[in-house]
Amino acid sequence: MIYSRKVFFYETDAQGIVHHSNYARYFEEARGFFLEQKGMPYEKIREELNIDIVLLELSIHYKKPLRFGDVFSIHLNLSSMDRYFFSFDYTVYLGKIIIAEGKTKHACIDRKTGKIVTVPQVLKQWKN
Amino acid sequence: MIYSRKVFFYETDAQGIVHHSNYARYFEEARGFFLEQKGMPYEKIREELNIDIVLLELSIHYKKPLRFGDVFSIHLNLSSMDRYFFSFDYTVYLGKIIIAEGKTKHACIDRKTGKIVTVPQVLKQWKN
Amino acid sequence: MIYSRKVFFYETDAQGIVHHSNYARYFEEARGFFLEQKGMPYEKIREELNIDIVLLELSIHYKKPLRFGDVFSIHLNLSSMDRYFFSFDYTVYLGKIIIAEGKTKHACIDRKTGKIVTVPQVLKQWKN
Amino acid sequence: MIYSRKVFFYETDAQGIVHHSNYARYFEEARGFFLEQKGMPYEKIREELNIDIVLLELSIHYKKPLRFGDVFSIHLNLSSMDRYFFSFDYTVYLGKIIIAEGKTKHACIDRKTGKIVTVPQVLKQWKN
Repeated sequence: MIYSRKVFFYETDAQGIVHHSNYARYFEEARGFFLEQKGMPYEKIREELNIDIVLLELSIHYKKPLRFGDVFSIHLNLSSMDRYFFSFDYTVYLGKIIIAEGKTKHACIDRKTGKIVTVPQVLKQWKN
Repeated sequence: MIYSRKVFFYETDAQGIVHHSNYARYFEEARGFFLEQKGMPYEKIREELNIDIVLLELSIHYKKPLRFGDVFSIHLNLSSMDRYFFSFDYTVYLGKIIIAEGKTKHACIDRKTGKIVTVPQVLKQWKN
Repeated sequence: MIYSRKVFFYETDAQGIVHHSNYARYFEEARGFFLEQKGMPYEKIREELNIDIVLLELSIHYKKPLRFGDVFSIHLNLSSMDRYFFSFDYTVYLGKIIIAEGKTKHACIDRKTGKIVTVPQVLKQWKN
Repeated sequence: MIYSRKVFFYETDAQGIVHHSNYARYFEEARGFFLEQKGMPYEKIREELNIDIVLLELSIHYKKPLRFGDVFSIHLNLSSMDRYFFSFDYTVYLGKIIIAEGKTKHACIDRKTGKIVTVPQVLKQWKN
């Protein structure tokens, strides 16, 4: 799945490039887009299933900078899924240039107890 | 009361200066410092009094930019307080240079109902 | 002109609503959209005219909160323009509910000298 | 070296915890503190040596959440250094509880050309 948008000015820093912390936010936007496209936006997951999706691991390799005005696209892929955990892979492109590659690992927690619960069936089915 | 700290790199933008949206965050930090100095940190207000302090109005006049590495100080003053509303005034300094001036207006809401409640006595006493 | 998008999760705070500082960023996004629609995106203004648009004044009245998943729209209007200064008015809507109203005042500065310059003709013509 | 500060309210999200993207910013703050303690703050490195320090890789393992009002401390360590690259390790603590562990890899670039340059001697000496 591909998520795309333009860099906002407030996402740049004094090096003239997108501040690295924003890539974690771009990945979150891309996951939100993924859930929406699957017909199950995250706000619905939170309210109907009463779970929060939490981030356990994040890794990013930065290859080239993004600048203000760039329109980037993120190719994201639900790369693994088991009983309790699932992961996404991300490749950030500017045209055909690879800007960054990343990976996130997640679990679902009960919003009341904060305890990890098994991944709901509705999410599990999205793995191929 | 004076709150002071150094500009973080991630607060700058591609103009090489602190992005204007961060001043609203600096003001919030300064209010948090004010509450702490009064012996009633905001996390305690939230939990013990079960209220949230919300922002109703914000205004900022930007005079000069802040840059990475600058150590700014904010002079803040609880400028008005009545039954339901209270306001802070802020002057941001870099040394003796005025960087910005601002004002915020607030109310307290019940964390469960979201309705505005009278300002708790503990806050009211600070406006002498 | 109307700019619209969905609230990102990372824009919320522990009160469960969009943090107030993000409205200044939404306004910047809306201005960027305005410049794009006018055929003169800000990155082009910066490079071709060698000017930066700076923010001199910001004011926001918060009426109702935005929450994660909300799709807000900002009605923005270039409300005044003279030789050196121009202003935008903003009304943030969720459906027909007014969420916030704001105003920003700007000037153009030479990117090398940092001095205020007269507003370029290309921008001036946008005022009606 | 240990860097410590209190969580700001605007760093929390609607899950009631510090948003994960802020850890990348905390790490940057900790590196800034490290450079300051070594007598060579980053703003001085940028101006005097005419280099930018860029981030090439970031990884974070999130163990426990941070909440508003928490005073966290980051133990950071310059873990490797060669001709072109250097890395920091980070452990974020709340009291004795490990909140997160992270790692960043960096290089220095010439601010004019954007090309990677050898790590300046002043930085190399810090790796005992």
